[in-house]
Amino acid sequence: MLFFVGLGISGFKSIPSEALDVLSKADIVYLEQFTSPIKRLDLTKIRNATKGEFRTVKRWQVEDGREILKKAKKKKVVLLSYGDPYIATTHIELRARAIEEKIKTHSIHASSSLTSMIGECGLHFYKIGRIATIMSEMKSLTTPYYVIYKNIVEGNHTILLLEYNQDKDFFLDPKDALRGLLETEKGQKRSVINLSTYVVVASRIGFKDQAIISGKISSLNKKDFGKPPHTIIIPGRLHFTESDALKILGECIDEPFDNSEKVKKISKQMMERYVPMVREALEEIEPYYMDQKKYQVILENAELYIHDAEKFLEDGQEEVAILSIGYADGLVDALRLAKGLDPKM
Amino acid sequence: MLFFVGLGISGFKSIPSEALDVLSKADIVYLEQFTSPIKRLDLTKIRNATKGEFRTVKRWQVEDGREILKKAKKKKVVLLSYGDPYIATTHIELRARAIEEKIKTHSIHASSSLTSMIGECGLHFYKIGRIATIMSEMKSLTTPYYVIYKNIVEGNHTILLLEYNQDKDFFLDPKDALRGLLETEKGQKRSVINLSTYVVVASRIGFKDQAIISGKISSLNKKDFGKPPHTIIIPGRLHFTESDALKILGECIDEPFDNSEKVKKISKQMMERYVPMVREALEEIEPYYMDQKKYQVILENAELYIHDAEKFLEDGQEEVAILSIGYADGLVDALRLAKGLDPKM
Repeated sequence: MLFFVGLGISGFKSIPSEALDVLSKADIVYLEQFTSPIKRLDLTKIRNATKGEFRTVKRWQVEDGREILKKAKKKKVVLLSYGDPYIATTHIELRARAIEEKIKTHSIHASSSLTSMIGECGLHFYKIGRIATIMSEMKSLTTPYYVIYKNIVEGNHTILLLEYNQDKDFFLDPKDALRGLLETEKGQKRSVINLSTYVVVASRIGFKDQAIISGKISSLNKKDFGKPPHTIIIPGRLHFTESDALKILGECIDEPFDNSEKVKKISKQMMERYVPMVREALEEIEPYYMDQKKYQVILENAELYIHDAEKFLEDGQEEVAILSIGYADGLVDALRLAKGLDPKM
Repeated sequence: MLFFVGLGISGFKSIPSEALDVLSKADIVYLEQFTSPIKRLDLTKIRNATKGEFRTVKRWQVEDGREILKKAKKKKVVLLSYGDPYIATTHIELRARAIEEKIKTHSIHASSSLTSMIGECGLHFYKIGRIATIMSEMKSLTTPYYVIYKNIVEGNHTILLLEYNQDKDFFLDPKDALRGLLETEKGQKRSVINLSTYVVVASRIGFKDQAIISGKISSLNKKDFGKPPHTIIIPGRLHFTESDALKILGECIDEPFDNSEKVKKISKQMMERYVPMVREALEEIEPYYMDQKKYQVILENAELYIHDAEKFLEDGQEEVAILSIGYADGLVDALRLAKGLDPKM
């Protein structure tokens, strides 16, 4: 039998009560620490709660899995890990392999840093978009950069997990992660990240010395966030209860603000440029067709489509908005071209 | 002092060990059940674990919060809830109010159905996009419909929470939710949801009779999912380990497949419709302007912009592609309108 047990986010005290019983009855308890380190004091408590064998395992041993599966065929084996067991996809794969090998499995879920962290910051979990991981290698930052962009334009918050390498005892510093994102901005130029972007750094969530510090990147650059683990959250649209909670539950160096206001969808950027332009072109051409009845319908249609484009944008139908303003522009420019004027597109 | 304590997803046995101590020392324990109901047996166990007063509270009492805050000023008060305490934004707001009123707070996080469910289904949590809720009122389905659309085109999975009303003991049935989405599709026509969409229904996650059933909507329509609570997951792009896990960890009526292959971005859908349409309209109008030199430049421009639109789409510049095809359409339709023909837009 193979038990997948989550330790939760606060060390031994966050372990689900059911798991205490499982630990005391297990023949072997494997503890993995590759998703997050576990403190020495908690390690001692876990060891004391186990009656059988106790072993710490490395990432490769869980990925390889053969020893664990072999033991689980005959004995009660526990794989204990930080947080919730199945946030690490390695654990899901090991469970699937166990079931295929006819080994019974049982899962004990526990608090995850992902859900806990968002609540501790006072942010709304249902506004979280896709999660991304930031590694120290610069080249790998393009993916999280676009995850942030796509989340922000939809008003979603982005959780950025920071590289942790157990073997090298390496934690990516939040300041280095932010520096990497600013560098990526220079190359990608979508105006997603700049020194004024509002960012939350959540440190040691679930522990006594937990800290939630937020502010513009320029302000955070001067901060010492203390010991790891850290996570970065880039908020999207902020409900006023979220801004209030950020201030009450954490330390805000700057007044929280909506990052999504500054990051505009390409469609919005286009509409802001084209609507006044087409309107102006239309006004310019109208006198040329004053008394020509058969062209009036074209002018009327152009007017109508400019108006529709604005309405579609308001309704969130961005693609139809762009199509409409493009169409209006085409109608107007045909009239201009027929009179030998330059087109406006 | 006010404690926010999560019960976890499996009833009393999923409560974090730290919470047992807190419950036994509390003067008053308030239990809310508006996010998910709690079984009678678990209720008894909770009651037995508390030494002080025990009260169940309704949603409005937590939202109002005055009684809880008043008691917490002088006594050790616990607000106990299903899952993790801060998934419900009501609890975050109450905590912020408590801190403002100088009441000390302490949070005990626990397993959340959001993270647990995804792991139980064998899906990767980092691929979860924004979460949506489905209510029984048809009008409200447009929002989740577009959340699904946006997630799928990015390859993300969508968690759909289903309406639960404690006062009416009402749980939205997953089949009704899917029916609502199919109805919404008829109105919105983005080709997001159809009878062949691959869907996962996760039922009673964390309990002994947990069930994970997946398949095309047409297959799920014939299924009985048993007692609530249920959640729907619409997968986006599936990694092969996710498809494998879905089959091993749950019941797949149909072979899992990638919904994102069939759901096209709105921009792509538009281009597929408009490019041939504008081309046809252009061919139709050309003979009318055969020998009129001043209109040749308009025809040439239309041809050019249709071509550019296709190139922009290939380059991933969807917005510019739509603008270009709209413009070409406008040029052509101006010529049509001038000849008294119907426009093609």
